[in-house]
Amino acid sequence: MNGEIICIGTEILLGDTLNTNSKYLSQELSHLGINVFYHSVVGDNPERLESTIELALQRSDIIIATGGLGPTQDDLTKETFSHLLKIPLVPHHSSLEHIQAIFNCSHSKMTENNIKQSYIPLGSTPIPNDKGTAPGVIIEKDDKVIILLPGPPKEMKHMFSIHVKPFLAQKTETHFFSRYYRIIGVGESTLESELMDIIDKQYNPTIATYAGNHEVLLRLTANADSQEQASQILQPFEDIIMKRMGENIYGGKNDLLETIVGKLLLAKNRSFSIAESCTGGLVASKLTKIPDISKVFHSGVVCYSNDAKENIIGVSPETIEKYGAVSAETAKELCQKLFLHTKTDIVMAITGIAGPGGSTETKPVGLVYIGMLYKGDILVKELRLRGDREDIQERAAKLALNLLREKLNTIV
Amino acid sequence: MNGEIICIGTEILLGDTLNTNSKYLSQELSHLGINVFYHSVVGDNPERLESTIELALQRSDIIIATGGLGPTQDDLTKETFSHLLKIPLVPHHSSLEHIQAIFNCSHSKMTENNIKQSYIPLGSTPIPNDKGTAPGVIIEKDDKVIILLPGPPKEMKHMFSIHVKPFLAQKTETHFFSRYYRIIGVGESTLESELMDIIDKQYNPTIATYAGNHEVLLRLTANADSQEQASQILQPFEDIIMKRMGENIYGGKNDLLETIVGKLLLAKNRSFSIAESCTGGLVASKLTKIPDISKVFHSGVVCYSNDAKENIIGVSPETIEKYGAVSAETAKELCQKLFLHTKTDIVMAITGIAGPGGSTETKPVGLVYIGMLYKGDILVKELRLRGDREDIQERAAKLALNLLREKLNTIV
Repeated sequence: MNGEIICIGTEILLGDTLNTNSKYLSQELSHLGINVFYHSVVGDNPERLESTIELALQRSDIIIATGGLGPTQDDLTKETFSHLLKIPLVPHHSSLEHIQAIFNCSHSKMTENNIKQSYIPLGSTPIPNDKGTAPGVIIEKDDKVIILLPGPPKEMKHMFSIHVKPFLAQKTETHFFSRYYRIIGVGESTLESELMDIIDKQYNPTIATYAGNHEVLLRLTANADSQEQASQILQPFEDIIMKRMGENIYGGKNDLLETIVGKLLLAKNRSFSIAESCTGGLVASKLTKIPDISKVFHSGVVCYSNDAKENIIGVSPETIEKYGAVSAETAKELCQKLFLHTKTDIVMAITGIAGPGGSTETKPVGLVYIGMLYKGDILVKELRLRGDREDIQERAAKLALNLLREKLNTIV
Repeated sequence: MNGEIICIGTEILLGDTLNTNSKYLSQELSHLGINVFYHSVVGDNPERLESTIELALQRSDIIIATGGLGPTQDDLTKETFSHLLKIPLVPHHSSLEHIQAIFNCSHSKMTENNIKQSYIPLGSTPIPNDKGTAPGVIIEKDDKVIILLPGPPKEMKHMFSIHVKPFLAQKTETHFFSRYYRIIGVGESTLESELMDIIDKQYNPTIATYAGNHEVLLRLTANADSQEQASQILQPFEDIIMKRMGENIYGGKNDLLETIVGKLLLAKNRSFSIAESCTGGLVASKLTKIPDISKVFHSGVVCYSNDAKENIIGVSPETIEKYGAVSAETAKELCQKLFLHTKTDIVMAITGIAGPGGSTETKPVGLVYIGMLYKGDILVKELRLRGDREDIQERAAKLALNLLREKLNTIV
């Protein structure tokens, strides 16, 4: 089965938008054992759109098109496919209800042009869109499979993984099975050195590492006929990886560090509060993305100014005067004084210099102290991080979350 | 002049590599006034490569192809173009010398297959590659311009900007000039309705809207011979857009809302503090991404639990008991009590239900109150937001920042 991906959108042809949809879909199709032979991008010009789709229908078995499903006059994807496939567009009642409900929820009026989004080709299977208005569709005709999805990556990916992937998996015979490991606290090259022996002789499974956002993603892929056979191929390699890197592995492909840490806090039922200076609320905002976290997350204080450290948390001006706001002593006292307000099981504090300004001869940009108070004991970690302001903030927040993860893992 | 970009590389079709070359080239060509009508990606299969190039030669005046210029047997770009254009490949002496020099430099032996890289189509102009081995070429035949560049972005971009851009600038007479407007607080379809009259009769300039992350990007593009002429074309349309949507426009293409708001806080020299419940520190972490913000950002309190609202900020338990943590009254008191600690010029508070849990019959998921205290006056805004937990948090944070922006704009 040969696939083709068509992305429809003038913004991509103008270079305004990076085409991440093609990469995502290519990767997913290749895991399903579907060869992707072409990517095409075309704008909202009716003739060029038609000729691109016509060519794809001639040369490919599976076509996935993204974009052009919206309410505006430029959105012509469904109309063009319907015309070429000679299938009429008909109203789809529950899609219209979904769109209407979204407008009702926000107390805004649905405009006439939104109704067009709810039309689908006769006999096609609508794909519900939980994250937006325009539904997708699966069309099967003359041994061809055509899948239309909206352009916004968040909507598209969600709909693909929930609805399209299981549908395509039924259509293909050979499969690739992957396991992913998210690794924090070691760089990509260190990781590669640690696993050099198994990387060098890789065949089935294949092994790949991808440098991520201050972490590394490790992929192990088996070519197998069944999930069971894949497990037999993958397990011995997973055992090696876990033995060598286990402490640094915090989760799988779709795991976020904050989700893992939040779930651990909930599972171990430990209350938590944090004082953040240089990370400016980043740890708090990551943790509060997790539903139900209110059961254990008591509070955060973004004590960005010295005044806030002193007047909200109660750090003594002498400590800041003597050791500086960025010091192990201040990190320690932030934990102790915040505990007096919050009485949470775990209290953390982060203070550092994110730059570009604020450095001194002895305290360079990237110097960060992370403190943690648990059962009366205080641990303070000194970090020297590199990168720009945002890198340093992001890395400090991640390493603080990782410190919390390690602590929670020791609690029974 | 109509352009087409072809990227040749199986790694893109497998989803291993993101196609950044097409975005870069599209952007460059659009600035030169060359319409890019198609992007194509194809692998190193000879038949599919040939059919893709054949189609491009039929439909486009300018073709830029990247990839497939290397030494291996899979690298067939030059060979295929030469074959289709009926131009023989001939050795190019100084390109061979350049490749030889690179091998000499690294004290390694040049293998036979590297010689193939130095062949160019007869009569074409070689493009030297300062950052790698494979040269590029410019081929001109029958009113077509074909430009072949290597695949690695670093080599490609360097060669394009130094050699190809000046060459293409001479070929084009008209240029495109764009202005961008970032709009917050109205949806894409509402915006389109507001501007329907000018969108409907668009010709020069063209107008496009792109739905972004809880905001809309509006693009206005003039086809003109000079910057001055472009301004004459664009200004009347900008005037209309500013008149109708001005209050909702916060910046241009590369502006972030938090950067605009942070700069306004600094420019108007107003100190700021915020109490965040449902947004969990998101506003604080966005604002503290901005260098120098410490001059005006005093503190944030992530008062996620009722205990934190009461014991850190000092909201009275009676208010929470009587009206609920998510209420206009609590938002108001959060502002008033936080002011007692921080004494900042502006104090804001956000409390709401981000979901998925926590809703009641009268208080649905998405109900958010934003309070703002300035010069003794308190404004409280009630919002009803849609989407999942992250959407609601992100949208509430953006709308809070926008409220702050609107307030700062009124301060002289």
